[in-house]
Amino acid sequence: MPQATPVAAMPQPPSAADALPGDWRPIPDDELMVMTLAGGKRVVVRLASRYAPEHVDNVRRLALAHWWDATTIYRVQDNWVTQWGGAPTDDDRKPMPAGIAERPAAEFDVSEGFHPAQTLSATDAYSGASGITADGWAIATARGGEGKAWLTHCYATVGVARDALPDTGSGGELFVAIGGSARRLDRNYTIVGRVIEGMAALSGLPRSEAAMGVYATARERLGIVSVRLASDLPAAERPHYQHRAADNPRFAAMIASRVSPRPPTVGLGGIDVCDVPLATRHTPTP
Amino acid sequence: MPQATPVAAMPQPPSAADALPGDWRPIPDDELMVMTLAGGKRVVVRLASRYAPEHVDNVRRLALAHWWDATTIYRVQDNWVTQWGGAPTDDDRKPMPAGIAERPAAEFDVSEGFHPAQTLSATDAYSGASGITADGWAIATARGGEGKAWLTHCYATVGVARDALPDTGSGGELFVAIGGSARRLDRNYTIVGRVIEGMAALSGLPRSEAAMGVYATARERLGIVSVRLASDLPAAERPHYQHRAADNPRFAAMIASRVSPRPPTVGLGGIDVCDVPLATRHTPTP
Repeated sequence: MPQATPVAAMPQPPSAADALPGDWRPIPDDELMVMTLAGGKRVVVRLASRYAPEHVDNVRRLALAHWWDATTIYRVQDNWVTQWGGAPTDDDRKPMPAGIAERPAAEFDVSEGFHPAQTLSATDAYSGASGITADGWAIATARGGEGKAWLTHCYATVGVARDALPDTGSGGELFVAIGGSARRLDRNYTIVGRVIEGMAALSGLPRSEAAMGVYATARERLGIVSVRLASDLPAAERPHYQHRAADNPRFAAMIASRVSPRPPTVGLGGIDVCDVPLATRHTPTP
Repeated sequence: MPQATPVAAMPQPPSAADALPGDWRPIPDDELMVMTLAGGKRVVVRLASRYAPEHVDNVRRLALAHWWDATTIYRVQDNWVTQWGGAPTDDDRKPMPAGIAERPAAEFDVSEGFHPAQTLSATDAYSGASGITADGWAIATARGGEGKAWLTHCYATVGVARDALPDTGSGGELFVAIGGSARRLDRNYTIVGRVIEGMAALSGLPRSEAAMGVYATARERLGIVSVRLASDLPAAERPHYQHRAADNPRFAAMIASRVSPRPPTVGLGGIDVCDVPLATRHTPTP
């Protein structure tokens, strides 16, 4: 909370909203994408392989081919997105490695429908209902029971850049939401993941004032040293992550504590699906 | 929209959603706060004097006393706020000039109630209804007809930092929302304005990983050269701004065009109050 004086963290007794050890579930190594930026900062993306299998398959193939190495972050548009990959113009677009579907079918909606482990009591302007899946993704469905469901473009969500519809994007160029809201991209772009480490390295970059936030000069671009699947890294360099599962009463209690904070804080009777903390952590050493 | 290839802007015929000349209304010079940062970047804040008169009165007095000159931006917390002013610790807090109410009454809610010019058709998780006031501010009201109304903590909203409740903050330390959502601050902090120019100078700063995002070293802080009311600047340096009024059918048509975009873009049937564009522009030279 914005406060003039930082308050030292007080030790707190365990609460009903705290995760139990078994609530932490491993994220498979091939669902972690590790980016190393010029200057050495590391960004880790959790891939949404269940929800966008074709695009995530492309993303994995591109990482295994080291295709993003020596590409750049070439776009930072304020209150919108940071974008990276291939190249910002058709003229110098990098050829795709073999096996990539250059125009996979749209995965704007998810095939499994709306089955969150936690459904939020208050809806939002962009959906009929929203919630958190058991495996820790924000999901929404349409008003009027149309049945379609989709992952939501929350802060730190990674999506597939594309040309005008009906293009769906190959996955070679990706963006991450860095602004107040990118929810109006829901159902129009394919989400392939979420930044779980190093988000500040993507959100804290200088904004470009050029058209669409594309850096006007090569000097402004930030180099990408490498992008790897964790499963493709030497064991010693491989990060191991767990996510907090949402299919348990502790997670429900955590949401409730945010919907109804302790007085004197005034609660608003709801929480936006993008404001529910989706925790991850390094796998503890046994 | 995230696209691989920026598309050149095509000339468009006027639409029912375009503002007419009379929809642009002047923002008084004493409702504009002009910040000059080290390095020369300028930030302009539109002050919410109608909605938080006591706190804005403090802010004006502080600007007229040149109180913020040589203070710093000392906190940048990712997905949350950039904060500046006095000083981050009680030890070296700058004394207030005469005439400042150090603990004005809370102005978390606004006295005039919920009377937007445009009420949004779809609600959000934090309110019973929301909309845009005639003079261009995002406003919300509670569920269940409690009657209270408040300005919403959207991206670029400037609020008053404070210690723990019941402190309300003097206005000497201010924050601006730079993240995915700060709506959970609604009704708990006083909003005094909105950044209308130079937001990227506040949002594109390096994030601090220290507690609460307070820069750990003096070297990280960004100096504030000066903060002035536009009305206190020499005429030649004074910016002149207009805001787009919302009490007209053009504004309603603009909202409608965003709620229901043209196919093939898929519309979501609603728009969040924080995603409604609140346009301002430099006053055209006659």
